[in-house]
Amino acid sequence: MTTRPYPFTKLPFGGDWNPEQWERPVWNEDVQLFEHAGIDLLSVNIFAWTALQPAEDTYDFTRLDEVLALLESRGLRACLGTGTAAIPAWMATAFPDVMRVDEQGRQHRFGGRHNACPNSPTYRRFAPALAGQLAKRYAGRDVVALWHVSNEYGGACYCPRCEGAFRVWLRERYGTLEALNHAWNAAFWSQTITAWDEIIAPNELSVQGGERTTAVQGLTLDYQRFMSDALLGAYRLEVDAIRAEIPDAVITTNLMGTYRPLDYRAWAPHLDVIAWDSYPSPQDTPAAIALRHTLMRSLKGGQPFMLMEQTPSQQNWQAYNALKRPGVMRLQSWQAVAHGADAVMFFQMRRSVGACEKFHGAVMEHHGRTDTRVFREVAQLGAELKALGSATLGARTPARVAVWFDWPAWWAVENSSGPTAALHYLREVTALYTAFHSQGYAVDLVGPDSDLSPYGVVASTLLYLLPTGAAEKLTAFVEGGGMFLAGLMSGVADESDRVFPGGPPGPLKELLGVWVEEVDALPPGETNGVVFQGGLSGTHDCTLLFEQLRVEDAEVLGAYAQDFYAGSPVLTRRRAGEGQAWKLGTSLDAAGLRTLTRALCDEAGVRPLVPELPAGLEVTQRDGDGGSFLFVLNHTAQEQRLDVPGLTGTDVLNGEAVDGTVTLPPHGVRIVRRDAAGATA
Amino acid sequence: MTTRPYPFTKLPFGGDWNPEQWERPVWNEDVQLFEHAGIDLLSVNIFAWTALQPAEDTYDFTRLDEVLALLESRGLRACLGTGTAAIPAWMATAFPDVMRVDEQGRQHRFGGRHNACPNSPTYRRFAPALAGQLAKRYAGRDVVALWHVSNEYGGACYCPRCEGAFRVWLRERYGTLEALNHAWNAAFWSQTITAWDEIIAPNELSVQGGERTTAVQGLTLDYQRFMSDALLGAYRLEVDAIRAEIPDAVITTNLMGTYRPLDYRAWAPHLDVIAWDSYPSPQDTPAAIALRHTLMRSLKGGQPFMLMEQTPSQQNWQAYNALKRPGVMRLQSWQAVAHGADAVMFFQMRRSVGACEKFHGAVMEHHGRTDTRVFREVAQLGAELKALGSATLGARTPARVAVWFDWPAWWAVENSSGPTAALHYLREVTALYTAFHSQGYAVDLVGPDSDLSPYGVVASTLLYLLPTGAAEKLTAFVEGGGMFLAGLMSGVADESDRVFPGGPPGPLKELLGVWVEEVDALPPGETNGVVFQGGLSGTHDCTLLFEQLRVEDAEVLGAYAQDFYAGSPVLTRRRAGEGQAWKLGTSLDAAGLRTLTRALCDEAGVRPLVPELPAGLEVTQRDGDGGSFLFVLNHTAQEQRLDVPGLTGTDVLNGEAVDGTVTLPPHGVRIVRRDAAGATA
Amino acid sequence: MTTRPYPFTKLPFGGDWNPEQWERPVWNEDVQLFEHAGIDLLSVNIFAWTALQPAEDTYDFTRLDEVLALLESRGLRACLGTGTAAIPAWMATAFPDVMRVDEQGRQHRFGGRHNACPNSPTYRRFAPALAGQLAKRYAGRDVVALWHVSNEYGGACYCPRCEGAFRVWLRERYGTLEALNHAWNAAFWSQTITAWDEIIAPNELSVQGGERTTAVQGLTLDYQRFMSDALLGAYRLEVDAIRAEIPDAVITTNLMGTYRPLDYRAWAPHLDVIAWDSYPSPQDTPAAIALRHTLMRSLKGGQPFMLMEQTPSQQNWQAYNALKRPGVMRLQSWQAVAHGADAVMFFQMRRSVGACEKFHGAVMEHHGRTDTRVFREVAQLGAELKALGSATLGARTPARVAVWFDWPAWWAVENSSGPTAALHYLREVTALYTAFHSQGYAVDLVGPDSDLSPYGVVASTLLYLLPTGAAEKLTAFVEGGGMFLAGLMSGVADESDRVFPGGPPGPLKELLGVWVEEVDALPPGETNGVVFQGGLSGTHDCTLLFEQLRVEDAEVLGAYAQDFYAGSPVLTRRRAGEGQAWKLGTSLDAAGLRTLTRALCDEAGVRPLVPELPAGLEVTQRDGDGGSFLFVLNHTAQEQRLDVPGLTGTDVLNGEAVDGTVTLPPHGVRIVRRDAAGATA
Repeated sequence: MTTRPYPFTKLPFGGDWNPEQWERPVWNEDVQLFEHAGIDLLSVNIFAWTALQPAEDTYDFTRLDEVLALLESRGLRACLGTGTAAIPAWMATAFPDVMRVDEQGRQHRFGGRHNACPNSPTYRRFAPALAGQLAKRYAGRDVVALWHVSNEYGGACYCPRCEGAFRVWLRERYGTLEALNHAWNAAFWSQTITAWDEIIAPNELSVQGGERTTAVQGLTLDYQRFMSDALLGAYRLEVDAIRAEIPDAVITTNLMGTYRPLDYRAWAPHLDVIAWDSYPSPQDTPAAIALRHTLMRSLKGGQPFMLMEQTPSQQNWQAYNALKRPGVMRLQSWQAVAHGADAVMFFQMRRSVGACEKFHGAVMEHHGRTDTRVFREVAQLGAELKALGSATLGARTPARVAVWFDWPAWWAVENSSGPTAALHYLREVTALYTAFHSQGYAVDLVGPDSDLSPYGVVASTLLYLLPTGAAEKLTAFVEGGGMFLAGLMSGVADESDRVFPGGPPGPLKELLGVWVEEVDALPPGETNGVVFQGGLSGTHDCTLLFEQLRVEDAEVLGAYAQDFYAGSPVLTRRRAGEGQAWKLGTSLDAAGLRTLTRALCDEAGVRPLVPELPAGLEVTQRDGDGGSFLFVLNHTAQEQRLDVPGLTGTDVLNGEAVDGTVTLPPHGVRIVRRDAAGATA
Repeated sequence: MTTRPYPFTKLPFGGDWNPEQWERPVWNEDVQLFEHAGIDLLSVNIFAWTALQPAEDTYDFTRLDEVLALLESRGLRACLGTGTAAIPAWMATAFPDVMRVDEQGRQHRFGGRHNACPNSPTYRRFAPALAGQLAKRYAGRDVVALWHVSNEYGGACYCPRCEGAFRVWLRERYGTLEALNHAWNAAFWSQTITAWDEIIAPNELSVQGGERTTAVQGLTLDYQRFMSDALLGAYRLEVDAIRAEIPDAVITTNLMGTYRPLDYRAWAPHLDVIAWDSYPSPQDTPAAIALRHTLMRSLKGGQPFMLMEQTPSQQNWQAYNALKRPGVMRLQSWQAVAHGADAVMFFQMRRSVGACEKFHGAVMEHHGRTDTRVFREVAQLGAELKALGSATLGARTPARVAVWFDWPAWWAVENSSGPTAALHYLREVTALYTAFHSQGYAVDLVGPDSDLSPYGVVASTLLYLLPTGAAEKLTAFVEGGGMFLAGLMSGVADESDRVFPGGPPGPLKELLGVWVEEVDALPPGETNGVVFQGGLSGTHDCTLLFEQLRVEDAEVLGAYAQDFYAGSPVLTRRRAGEGQAWKLGTSLDAAGLRTLTRALCDEAGVRPLVPELPAGLEVTQRDGDGGSFLFVLNHTAQEQRLDVPGLTGTDVLNGEAVDGTVTLPPHGVRIVRRDAAGATA
Repeated sequence: MTTRPYPFTKLPFGGDWNPEQWERPVWNEDVQLFEHAGIDLLSVNIFAWTALQPAEDTYDFTRLDEVLALLESRGLRACLGTGTAAIPAWMATAFPDVMRVDEQGRQHRFGGRHNACPNSPTYRRFAPALAGQLAKRYAGRDVVALWHVSNEYGGACYCPRCEGAFRVWLRERYGTLEALNHAWNAAFWSQTITAWDEIIAPNELSVQGGERTTAVQGLTLDYQRFMSDALLGAYRLEVDAIRAEIPDAVITTNLMGTYRPLDYRAWAPHLDVIAWDSYPSPQDTPAAIALRHTLMRSLKGGQPFMLMEQTPSQQNWQAYNALKRPGVMRLQSWQAVAHGADAVMFFQMRRSVGACEKFHGAVMEHHGRTDTRVFREVAQLGAELKALGSATLGARTPARVAVWFDWPAWWAVENSSGPTAALHYLREVTALYTAFHSQGYAVDLVGPDSDLSPYGVVASTLLYLLPTGAAEKLTAFVEGGGMFLAGLMSGVADESDRVFPGGPPGPLKELLGVWVEEVDALPPGETNGVVFQGGLSGTHDCTLLFEQLRVEDAEVLGAYAQDFYAGSPVLTRRRAGEGQAWKLGTSLDAAGLRTLTRALCDEAGVRPLVPELPAGLEVTQRDGDGGSFLFVLNHTAQEQRLDVPGLTGTDVLNGEAVDGTVTLPPHGVRIVRRDAAGATA
């Protein structure tokens, strides 16, 4: 699979535009405002199915023709939606199979979006047909910069057609029922399948007792894989229909960051460019947002991505939709660029006047005025991006630290019953990522198929599900000189969520030199302590789970502080080849994780981007044809100063020279293009 | 539509009596106790459908004949239920369409009450047939004082028959699908309807994600209107059946105060007298209860109402069913009268021995004794009411302050997604009502169709949905000298929940002289402050939502105290004609609302009923043929004293003369008939 | 019904073994570890239906033959499951009626366990057929020590077949619809049934609004009885099939302690020996666990029982699955024996590698090693049990105090709406039990059919539902010299949950000499006080419900401390015959209950097993052919000392002589075989 070249020579700025909700005079106002704000790329036609195909045998492209002509006439370009993200009413009525059956077993009817059954013959016939019609009609039109298939794929269906497709999928995966029953340990509770047709989709009418409760983990895990594949299959049908008309079309769809149901690693090869929608909650830390950008960047091995949606002001679907404070929209936009974004886009240009997103912020609010805080901030950012031009386009974000992130591990560890209901994959991985990131290390996220050779440190937690070959790969990494950290609940189960013979850490046991005798689980609020030793020092709180490690061949670098396992090992290290394999048996607090991760980096000779990073500041680096850029972001409401000995360069936003020190206003951003001699990694 | 004259010459006292649950000897005990307690009106036959019609073609009125004869023989009168409030088992079995489909799309089966589908052909045939039979049988019988159709209408149905009726209703409302799609902004998410039969009832199988979550607000709002109308239609079928036999029958049904699903304003013209059931929770403030009485009184423009049900002792369906403390039942009964009740009724005469209300209090508890606290309190009240006679009957409660209350606004603002999930219509309106009421102002509740001419002040909050003509009406009110307050989120959307062009406050923008640039939403617990200025003084907490007002033509009377909008306006006033239009952009605390509402009244020259009202006291006034009565209620457990300079009159409960001062025991009540010179308003 | 003799001459030790999940070499490892740990009884074949019957017409016992042969060859014995606890996939597919319809009315499909509809013709055909095949095949094999039918019966079904069977069950219970309608007070809300076929199972599609909310208590209560009977009926079909082949087979199933849905008292006669699974949550007090053992022991009048399952280390289905601390598994095992267990069994021998119990602890963890804390503790216990031999087998636990425990009362009081949602039967009964138990009294649990003659004290709370004859029985008990305590909400309703004429305490009114005028309910956190008097002293907090007692013929021993009923009676005593009848009208705190219960015992001349029991210690006594044993258990993590003047004997665990004092290490256990002179009761 080849990836098409990025169709822009300047970082595009824009977002969703829904002219179908407005009269023609409003269109004209809008294009003027686009010019005013430096907006040059519009996502259109995202939810237009009924408009384009008002009946089974009727297509009508009149309005879309006009929309594209208007954009073209102003020198604007389109990210053209295929419009298939919500099923038309006529289709739901005439072909009820197109609607999903939910996790409670209920057949849904017309209404809402993200509601197509991916195995519905109706959907699989009509959706690519529409995409093909669009491609045929607009082939060769430069106004169409790229294609945006459907919208925010997600959810799941449990209908009879999905169930049938699941059986076929399983037969391809396992070949025989004997293999399937073994994988699922189906002898347990007599869950043995004796004919393929006996397999039932895992919802509340069969094995599920809720989203995180199942009687048969292997079945549920396979359905999660299957449904991710099924939605990908639906996406690919549309891609194929477009490609048939426009072989070199640039095609994508908008992903959703740390979205659990879809294994985006499996999706990535089928997108020409990764695009994603960033909607942080007011509670999210900057590091949590950074992790999502990093994850999206990692999907195609570090290739830059598009920030396809963000709100300019506020959301509507959080419980309490606070405004982004002055400067924060700009700051978060530059944060995306800092982590590899080559586009900055909003949802949406103009607030809709009715239905469920009418309180979602927009560049143009309901009042339709431009003499406002939000519009001014958008226009300022537009001007800055125009000034930046192509400087950062295509630039990479070199990193020598990698944190493990894997969808099947996420699914499996949260499907399990026990040892604790308080276990959340994302929380633990985010804590680990934050420990590196908050100290100024450039970090990537990697998974089972990643090339580990660029990294000095590979750190993991909840590496619960260990795919075939992963242990060998990690062993080679260590023996080649890498520092590897295995955290809590590592090496527990194989790809079918079967516990490895001999128990955790399974195939990592030899590498780590320890095994896990027991795992204690205590309620939130009950803590133990980790007493560092062997070169590390300090005592730090730990919570959640407490593994009892039995050391066979490793140094002890930390011991429990209390309870009946006081003094027993919780952090160990084994030297292997040129590298080291570390094992941590609990959930350590932030300060402890910072100490631990810095020690790993020191052992690996990995240095942070800056020697000392004050709290609330973030640094990243992008290197490309346009130079090497140090991004410094101030996530606090106070002025900040950062010393970077040896740094010389020019701030590309204000043109000022920088020499060793960067000062930032509240929520400020500095982008320093390094002088030729100043690049580091 | 004409309203029949009130069929009583003395304020009736009584309640629900269910002889069908008891043997004949108990009936005789009961009627003796009625006499003992001064009870003279009994609601009977409320849940008697199966007894009256044990099979499709069989009616049996034997027992009801006996019940009425017994009442008649004792000089008691009946509020005669039509008995249709619960579907008989035989009907549910033979005609399953009579049972509802719920918000989860589940077809219900026999069991419980309030379970009839209002569009079921079966129900619409059998219910009025029974009502007609009853009317035919008991026409001309003086023992039947009034008719009580069904019971506590409520809930909703989502069955295919309702769906079909909804399509007809929509076609009548909109005429064309184009109009409907525009009203619902259906281009959003491709929700466009291309044929009437594609319209789906909004439940969890279509657009609802729960009671307050919908994908299409316009659809959901219309279904709320439709279902209120559908239940009203079912009520009217029974009314018509009775009227056909007894043209001058006095007919009503028991409403439920601030009951969200039914737009009682649309119901009111079809009831001869408003009747309602008051079941405050132990957490309700006296003002919250007062608001409900006021709302019920407002339904027919101030006409007195019946307190149709209350518990003499305790409820059973609250989480914790505390006893009403000694004196509280009496106090709450007089509170109802103080606000316009011309009847005081209980649920129920005798505790049932089984099924789900067996722990609901009654005049006669399970022990069946009269030497009890509860019975004594009931009998004391009965004696007081007898002594009062007809004095207050028909008396009005003059008020010069009105607070806006509108069901469609309530529905719409709580259907919306964003800006905050913490927004509750009733809480905000109650806070505003309480600010006036707690200072001794007589208050009415008004809506879009109300005559505003009696009022000096009209205050609103969450006037979110502004019906056609409302802005003109309010403008005329102001220009004619009125004080108008528009609170938080005013003038946002039209009757279809489409945001007005130009944004909030929509058609009120000219009148108020401000527009809303943005609305911030913060989690509960995060506050800002309002710094009063321009004649008002003090600083008060505000919470929930924080509108950024842009002033075009208004004085600023308050500014935010902190955050990035510190110093920007939050309270404004524009003088227009003889009056003033005030705008408040946040949810102000109780003390702040008191200051603000007093300022409005002062500007309008509206005076409270008493100069200074101590906390925990309540005052109202009723004026009628029997005189002008000042009601003073002590909601505290301490003795209280109230000074009312110039008040002279006689306490009608104890016959004592009053001159300028009223003292009240704990939970005490004083009703002062003013001397001819003492009346004020 | 006769009970078969206990088939063991030494207290058996073992648990669930699932060789079907493992390869043959693992079987051989396992049997060696059994020997190493002193394990001699294995529960096998519990979930083997699909394996034994892979298709409708095919049985295959090959593997089970091998399993039993292997056990036999090692001198081990089997508790042989009939394997019917989970429906095979082929059966669910071919005969969908075998799967349940749930409380939401949803037909379930294949998956999980405990999923058979007890009235399914398919299930009722296939399950006993399999049991019969097993019995025929293994009749006369000594390796089969006892039969274990299905597993942990529970849950409920609401399918049309259950509904039909329910109608038959009701017709047998009531004879006529008139009787049924009277029992359910069906005139309320017109719930009257006019034909048997109109009766609907009580789920969310009919009268239920959730598990504890019903419109018709009588209907729901009868369905609870019916479903308990229906599951018992399914059990009995299998028992009969086994008996047909092996008339003297010892047959049981594993119960679940205080499991609400099944009335184990009705089940007990059909089990040859009571067996139960003990899975305390980390929050359970030792007394709460003791209550469950006591309840299980009480089911067959004090006959010893089997502890059929417990975890050696941790569970998986609690929210937070803490490890049992060192010594706690042993302590809880001996606690079971102390209360009458004649077997100590685990779930499970080896942790399963997949599916939903893979994190449930086992004797052999996933690592498969024996050099572990858990295995060592198991093996130590195995050795101790071997040393104990038959000494305690069959020994009884004499008690002179009884606490009332009755499933229908539990159901009924929690089905009710009001007076408080905070009312939990188990919490109140446990508090009462704990008051006796924590002072060292030997306690039994009794119900309506129990022989009360052994007891000096019978104490109750929430004796809400009073079966026919219970009042007479309790009156006779008192008149014969017993002390009877009626607690909160006693004597409220009859067996159909109809309130007794005259109200609470119904038929107990004469015995107690008081009646209940009102019951106040306050939210959790609001308290009153009980001021003891008349020989008792002190003031103690009370909560939840506050009955207003009216005394007709009783002494007042306690009065309320505050609120409008301050000073009014809350604790009374009436002397009747040789005994006394006490009445308590609230939920008293732990210290108050201790004072009250000690007073009752003192009046009855009942002495505790030891004069003064320190907090955290537990004592019980078992007397049998092997002697009289005093069990002393230390539930604290500190060393403890207990003085028992006059106690002389030998600790059977360590062989040391005991003379007046017992010292215990943390979590320690002492079992003192009394010298011939030392026995007390």
